Amino acid sequence: MASSVLEAAWTAADFEDRLRRIGRERYHDRHPFHLKMHRGELSRRQVQCWILNRFYYQKNIPIKDAIIVSRLRDREDRRRWIHRVVEHDGAGGDEGGIEAWIKLGEAAGISGATIQDESNILPAVQFAVDAYVNFCRLKTVEEAVAASLTELFAGALIAQRIEVIEKHYRWIKPEGLDYFRRRVSEAPRDARSALEFVLRNARSRQDQEKAVAALKFKCDVLWSLLDAVELACSES
Amino acid sequence: MASSVLEAAWTAADFEDRLRRIGRERYHDRHPFHLKMHRGELSRRQVQCWILNRFYYQKNIPIKDAIIVSRLRDREDRRRWIHRVVEHDGAGGDEGGIEAWIKLGEAAGISGATIQDESNILPAVQFAVDAYVNFCRLKTVEEAVAASLTELFAGALIAQRIEVIEKHYRWIKPEGLDYFRRRVSEAPRDARSALEFVLRNARSRQDQEKAVAALKFKCDVLWSLLDAVELACSES
Repeated sequence: MASSVLEAAWTAADFEDRLRRIGRERYHDRHPFHLKMHRGELSRRQVQCWILNRFYYQKNIPIKDAIIVSRLRDREDRRRWIHRVVEHDGAGGDEGGIEAWIKLGEAAGISGATIQDESNILPAVQFAVDAYVNFCRLKTVEEAVAASLTELFAGALIAQRIEVIEKHYRWIKPEGLDYFRRRVSEAPRDARSALEFVLRNARSRQDQEKAVAALKFKCDVLWSLLDAVELACSES
Repeated sequence: MASSVLEAAWTAADFEDRLRRIGRERYHDRHPFHLKMHRGELSRRQVQCWILNRFYYQKNIPIKDAIIVSRLRDREDRRRWIHRVVEHDGAGGDEGGIEAWIKLGEAAGISGATIQDESNILPAVQFAVDAYVNFCRLKTVEEAVAASLTELFAGALIAQRIEVIEKHYRWIKPEGLDYFRRRVSEAPRDARSALEFVLRNARSRQDQEKAVAALKFKCDVLWSLLDAVELACSES
C-alpha cells in the first residue's frame, strides 16, 4: 500500500464500485454454510449453533458503534451514527435488536439463559468478533466506518433469509423473525449513510485503499464466523 | 491504596457520604475565579474567556460519554447512559447542549466561529479535558462513571449561576442561558443514575476507594480549568 501515496485518487464512482465489488466476491452469502442454509439443508442443531454463535456478533454491535460515535469528531456525524446503538440496545418501549435476537433464539428452541451465556460461544467466533471491535477501536474511524459497509450487501440477503426460514425451517416460530424484519429496512439506510461518510472522508488514494482493505477485513470476520460454526456443528 | 485490599468495604451510606464530602471540599464552586464570578466581579473579557475555554470541556462530553457507553457490558446500563450523548449532540429538532453553549457564547459576544476554533483554547484547558477523556478510556468503567459524579454538585450551582448572570452580567443576552436551564434538571437526574451505578458496582473497599479517587481526579480537572482561565485572563 506504500506505493499508493503517489497514485491519483479513484473517482467517487470508481471507488464505490470497488467497494461494491468486494461484496460480490467476499460477502458471507457465498459461504458454503450459508448456501446450505438457504437451500434448506441445515439440521435443527446446525441452525441453533449458528443463531447461538451469531449472537456474540449481535451483542457486540452496539459496543463497536458506541466506539465509532466516540471517535467521530463532528457532531453531525455522531448524530447520524448514534441511532445504531439505540436500535440494537432498545429504548423506552422498543426492545431493540439484541432482545429481538434473543427472541429468535427462543423461537428456535434455545433458552434466553443459554444464548446469553458466553461460555457457549466458540472461541474462533469470539476471536473474530473481538478482532472487529478492536479494529474499530484502533484503526482510523474512516476504516471503522468502511468496515460497516457489509450492510450494503445485507438488505437483500436478510429479506431472502426470512423467506428461507419460513419455507425450510418452519420449526422456528414466526415471532422469532422480527430481528430480520427490522434489519431489512435499517441495513440499507445505515449503509447509505456510512457509504456517504466514506466517500466524503476517504479522498486520497491511500485512504481509499485503506477503506477497501477495511471492508475486506470485515468480510473475513463474517466468513470466519461461519467457518467456525460449520466446523464445530457439522453433522458428519 | 494497596493496603485497602484487606479492609472491609464501607457501607453504602458511608460510601455515598464520602463521595458527597468530596464535593463539599473540592468542587470548583470553591475556586477563587468562581467565587469572583458569583460576586459579579469578573470583567466582560474574563467571562468571555471562561465561556470560550469551557466550551472545550462541553464539546468533549458526548465523546467521553460514548466511550463510557462502549465500555458498559450490560445493555440496561448502556440504555441508561446513552441519552447523555444525545442530549449534548442533539437529535432531530432538539439542538442539544453543545449548540446551546455556542449560543451562550454568541449571547456573550463571541462568534460561533471563534468558539469553535480550537486554536483559541488554552493549552492547560486542553490538557485537563483530554486527561478526563483519556481517564474514561483507560481506567475501569466504574472509575469513569464515578468521575461523572461531579454532577451531584452541579444542580445547585447551575441554578445559582442563572441568577448570577441575570443579576451581574446583564450584557449576556437572556437567550444564552438555555444551556444552564437544560442542565438544572438533567444534571441531578444523571447524577442519581450514575450514583446508583457506582454504589451497585464498586462493592469492595478497593473499588470504593478507586471511585473516591476518580471523583477527586474529576474535581481536579474542573479546578485546573478555572486555574488556567484565571491565570490567562486576569485583568491586572
